[in-house]
Amino acid sequence: MEEMKIQNRITDTFWMNYRKLVRREMIPYQWKVLNDEGEIRIEPERNDPGIPAEKSHALENFRIAAGIHEGHHYGWVFQDSDVYKWLEAAAYALAEEMDEELKEKADRVVDLIAEAQEEDGYLGTYFTIEEPERKFKSLQNSHELYCAGHFMEAAAAYYQATGNAKVLETAEKLADCIERALGPAGSFGYDGHEEVEIGLMKLYHLTGKERYLNLARHFLLIRGTDQDFFGEQKKTDPGKKPLIRGMDQLPRSYFQAHLPVLQQSSAEGHAVRLVYLLTAMADAAAASRDEALLNSCRKIWDNITKKRMFITGGIGSTVHGEAFTFDYDLPNDTMYCETCASVGLVFLARQMLRSDARGEYGDVMERALYNTVLSGTALDGKHFFYVNPLEVNPASYKYDPGKSHVKPVRPEWLGCACCPPNLARLLASVDQYIYSVNGSTCLAVLYMKSETRISGPEGEVWIRQETDYPKSGEIAFSVRKTGDFDFQLGLRIPAWTDQAELRVNGQLSSGKAQDGFVYLRIPEGETEILLSLSIRPILWRADPRVRADIGKAALARGPIVYCLEERDNGKDLHLVSLDREPDFEEKEEEGLLGRIISISAKGKRIQIPENAGDLYSPVESGTLEKKPVRLHFIPYYTWANRGSNEMTVYVRTE
Amino acid sequence: MEEMKIQNRITDTFWMNYRKLVRREMIPYQWKVLNDEGEIRIEPERNDPGIPAEKSHALENFRIAAGIHEGHHYGWVFQDSDVYKWLEAAAYALAEEMDEELKEKADRVVDLIAEAQEEDGYLGTYFTIEEPERKFKSLQNSHELYCAGHFMEAAAAYYQATGNAKVLETAEKLADCIERALGPAGSFGYDGHEEVEIGLMKLYHLTGKERYLNLARHFLLIRGTDQDFFGEQKKTDPGKKPLIRGMDQLPRSYFQAHLPVLQQSSAEGHAVRLVYLLTAMADAAAASRDEALLNSCRKIWDNITKKRMFITGGIGSTVHGEAFTFDYDLPNDTMYCETCASVGLVFLARQMLRSDARGEYGDVMERALYNTVLSGTALDGKHFFYVNPLEVNPASYKYDPGKSHVKPVRPEWLGCACCPPNLARLLASVDQYIYSVNGSTCLAVLYMKSETRISGPEGEVWIRQETDYPKSGEIAFSVRKTGDFDFQLGLRIPAWTDQAELRVNGQLSSGKAQDGFVYLRIPEGETEILLSLSIRPILWRADPRVRADIGKAALARGPIVYCLEERDNGKDLHLVSLDREPDFEEKEEEGLLGRIISISAKGKRIQIPENAGDLYSPVESGTLEKKPVRLHFIPYYTWANRGSNEMTVYVRTE
Repeated sequence: MEEMKIQNRITDTFWMNYRKLVRREMIPYQWKVLNDEGEIRIEPERNDPGIPAEKSHALENFRIAAGIHEGHHYGWVFQDSDVYKWLEAAAYALAEEMDEELKEKADRVVDLIAEAQEEDGYLGTYFTIEEPERKFKSLQNSHELYCAGHFMEAAAAYYQATGNAKVLETAEKLADCIERALGPAGSFGYDGHEEVEIGLMKLYHLTGKERYLNLARHFLLIRGTDQDFFGEQKKTDPGKKPLIRGMDQLPRSYFQAHLPVLQQSSAEGHAVRLVYLLTAMADAAAASRDEALLNSCRKIWDNITKKRMFITGGIGSTVHGEAFTFDYDLPNDTMYCETCASVGLVFLARQMLRSDARGEYGDVMERALYNTVLSGTALDGKHFFYVNPLEVNPASYKYDPGKSHVKPVRPEWLGCACCPPNLARLLASVDQYIYSVNGSTCLAVLYMKSETRISGPEGEVWIRQETDYPKSGEIAFSVRKTGDFDFQLGLRIPAWTDQAELRVNGQLSSGKAQDGFVYLRIPEGETEILLSLSIRPILWRADPRVRADIGKAALARGPIVYCLEERDNGKDLHLVSLDREPDFEEKEEEGLLGRIISISAKGKRIQIPENAGDLYSPVESGTLEKKPVRLHFIPYYTWANRGSNEMTVYVRTE
Repeated sequence: MEEMKIQNRITDTFWMNYRKLVRREMIPYQWKVLNDEGEIRIEPERNDPGIPAEKSHALENFRIAAGIHEGHHYGWVFQDSDVYKWLEAAAYALAEEMDEELKEKADRVVDLIAEAQEEDGYLGTYFTIEEPERKFKSLQNSHELYCAGHFMEAAAAYYQATGNAKVLETAEKLADCIERALGPAGSFGYDGHEEVEIGLMKLYHLTGKERYLNLARHFLLIRGTDQDFFGEQKKTDPGKKPLIRGMDQLPRSYFQAHLPVLQQSSAEGHAVRLVYLLTAMADAAAASRDEALLNSCRKIWDNITKKRMFITGGIGSTVHGEAFTFDYDLPNDTMYCETCASVGLVFLARQMLRSDARGEYGDVMERALYNTVLSGTALDGKHFFYVNPLEVNPASYKYDPGKSHVKPVRPEWLGCACCPPNLARLLASVDQYIYSVNGSTCLAVLYMKSETRISGPEGEVWIRQETDYPKSGEIAFSVRKTGDFDFQLGLRIPAWTDQAELRVNGQLSSGKAQDGFVYLRIPEGETEILLSLSIRPILWRADPRVRADIGKAALARGPIVYCLEERDNGKDLHLVSLDREPDFEEKEEEGLLGRIISISAKGKRIQIPENAGDLYSPVESGTLEKKPVRLHFIPYYTWANRGSNEMTVYVRTE
């Protein structure tokens, strides 16, 4: 049973709500933004005075490139990708549930994109409008292939959802144009921002055309094999001004071009770029069974997840270059943890699962998904975080320019608007992440109420998941197999649980456990499986080499990381600590934060001395007074939904 | 006895060594640098790509301005001030001990400066050479008055040391030029960097000419009274390029121009600017008995020292604008703590003492002096810190651009070379800080072995201090008074001591204690006074509102703050903690760090688990193993003299 097709339908309340949010709020809201309708309030991006932030202009750029309107390109050189990501999100929404009005809008966007495409297939509004002589001549910063990759992803998704032929045709014409210019027979060159490789892989999966796989592999494998490709291109770049100010000063590692990818083994440079690169590498490795490529992915994955990832699944330890820094450097209040980077980490985990059936990929996927990804949007679906901190003090945001990137509330939009549509496209396609099917094995990676049909030449398997995970850890699978073929279901046993029980047709079963999955061979007919995972509040500490977390712990309940907010716990959250016996109490509640399980715990609060006149005082003069307090934790992803206030994930422990 | 003159001679080994270092190393070394002799290696200033760093060119700029050489100005617009501060340091060195070779060099520098001065008294090599049409037209960033102030300070010192008439004449001609252009009868305007006010006060003290006091007061009192003086000047600035890139974007508070100085009550903006402003304000307030001006100084002093000062006497909580941020924001590893800012804090404390006989001024003076100021130079006198951190990890310096300003070793020179000569001039004149004489009261502010003669119209007082403070807290004063007049000696009782004993002629005495001083009326003839201060290792904790220091303490012995270095305590200093009963042991030793008292203490070190594979693990799985260790502390000012390594001032406590 080589080629199994899978169709999922989410019926889970938690995720349906997010998908409704995408459909009803994010997609219409982002449509308005892309069309420059209404006014958008953006928090001052104090560190990035160069960011154009007054309007999006993204669709208008296409109208100008298409010759429909006159004017100049406005915004980032990669502004087109906002439109593509919107289209991709719309595609997934339409795949879930047809909506003629949305389809009509999306079809018009496809028409517009096709009109903006040049005769030879070139697509990129900045260069078409402003500097045609510079096409493909400034790849370090042009984002031409980056945008192309996003269009290919959108095209594949939109074609699959609607059968729109024009979108696929436009994307293939673009891929051909890129292949002529920069393929194995063209000039040497790769993009400063990886993404086209993902797009090409999507075209390959959709069309089965080997040339897209080959072109993706070409871009992956030539990366970093040069002495100084970006520098060489710069010398002959016909443009005078940098496409993005200061970016040509960045080191090669920022672009993951410091070494050939097969020689890279640590997470370097811009976090989003790296996870996009790895996503494509893992995808191509799975498609072409390339063990060397896969090995690089595994090594870098290990480096990320064992030494450079926050407990929230956030990555990127510094705002400078939105980048990785060094092992165990995970500062809670100056980090970056861009929403897009965690979205990319989810993409990557999914691709890794295709080659390696290891539970850790699913663990990290859900860690990123339930925490940093969801934190990227306000509960209203109309405010977004770019940066997802683990500790915030509004005064630092306001008065310390070194922390001005760490906003205490989500702005309505972002000068660099990569995150909101990235989030939308992931949430709208989250059904694709539930299972990973490889040969005769289906891995259950995410647990959510859903109905799934897996069909192959020899028959079908229907899987119905009944659960309110992660509120509870009870997941019931009703599996119906028709046809006599080999099929096994692997259930992920998350590393965070300390107890998992499996019942098959009512009988306790141990299954076959391996690498974080427990496997069951599924017979023909009906099988009832009940997986019971213990989900309870657990305190986690970081490896002691993480300086920022020494003497502290973070609370999680299943995959969901918790935090303290000032709103519930008063100001100066650094003054509180958790008792050694915290006596956790869980409480299901519904309110401003939606339906959540809040957790309270026993703690202490250091009292500020009443007559504190001296900034420094002898320790021997007496210990600081502490008062017992009840600490109130909320899920991290719900923070900053009740106005600007302090927040912390890590809490001091006794 | 209104006008008492004071002459000090330091005989103290500790301070004589520093003064020898200034005379034998710093002054000759800085002379070479100012003359572009030899090669200087500067650490890459990664955050400041705009800094010219290849050479100083400072004296060459004067030669070009004087018409002796041809060429262009090179370096910062305020490069001249490096020469003036060198001259001032040379003046103090000559005052201590005549050196014909040095005097000859310094006289030539004075001649050169005089030659570079224009007919009308204008002095400023950048504008003379490059943009004469722009003189006084871009005061936000021109540093013209800043440089002038440094020259006035140098001139006053050099005239006092050598009687060189030309230097004073040149300075007065410059002051007159400034008065015509920007005095009360000239155009409205003040400098973006306060300093001329200090220089004018020095000219006033030297010459007794009221106009200099009035001009200083004028600049102080018009500051911030405008709507937008800098912005208005920018509109009509005939120059096209900014004198310092990006500086015109800074908020008014950076320049302390957000409010009239009489309305300012908190420490805002660039730390060096603020303490220079306050130094002049306190000086002018004392000279003109201006209580309103003094009150502003007191308020801002309180804000600095009670809420915004590091335990090392460092100020400036962020690299961005080298500035203050907000109350209790004292991050140990991202702060600025510029050497110059602590030098300025010493200046300020001295001026405050002239009006308010409060021990806290002396306490802060010695805190800054023995810690951040001394830390500014390597023990060889040829390497300098601009930034004086309380915690350093060399990996952060290397891989985290947000901490790239925090160097783990002192470079040989600095692109912006304000600190080395500032340090030199303070160390060379430290004798002036020992006593503060006001009317018939002499305050003993600093304790160091020295001989002092205070003379007035009615007689003289000789004071000989015998001590090896702060190695020990025994300070013996032999006082000889000739003449029948009222004279009292106030001895500072540092707030850090918990025991002070006073003997007068062998008899226990309580003196009259007030505001941190204990006063003794000195009779005619000989008086022997013995002050015994308890000096022992004491742990200090910061106000709990200081987030960075919660759960931590800093060790000090008398005024000297201590630190842990990796060299003595191994890597990962965050893993060590001090026991509740640290059992301090002091040990006098002589070695690479000079003659110091090192302190060891009982502590623990968290062990990194051998099989630490997981980045996050449940707290309930067991506590981290800790092993008892002996911690080795060294004086903070001696850190980074044995190569690049980790350092921390604050240590976790049990």
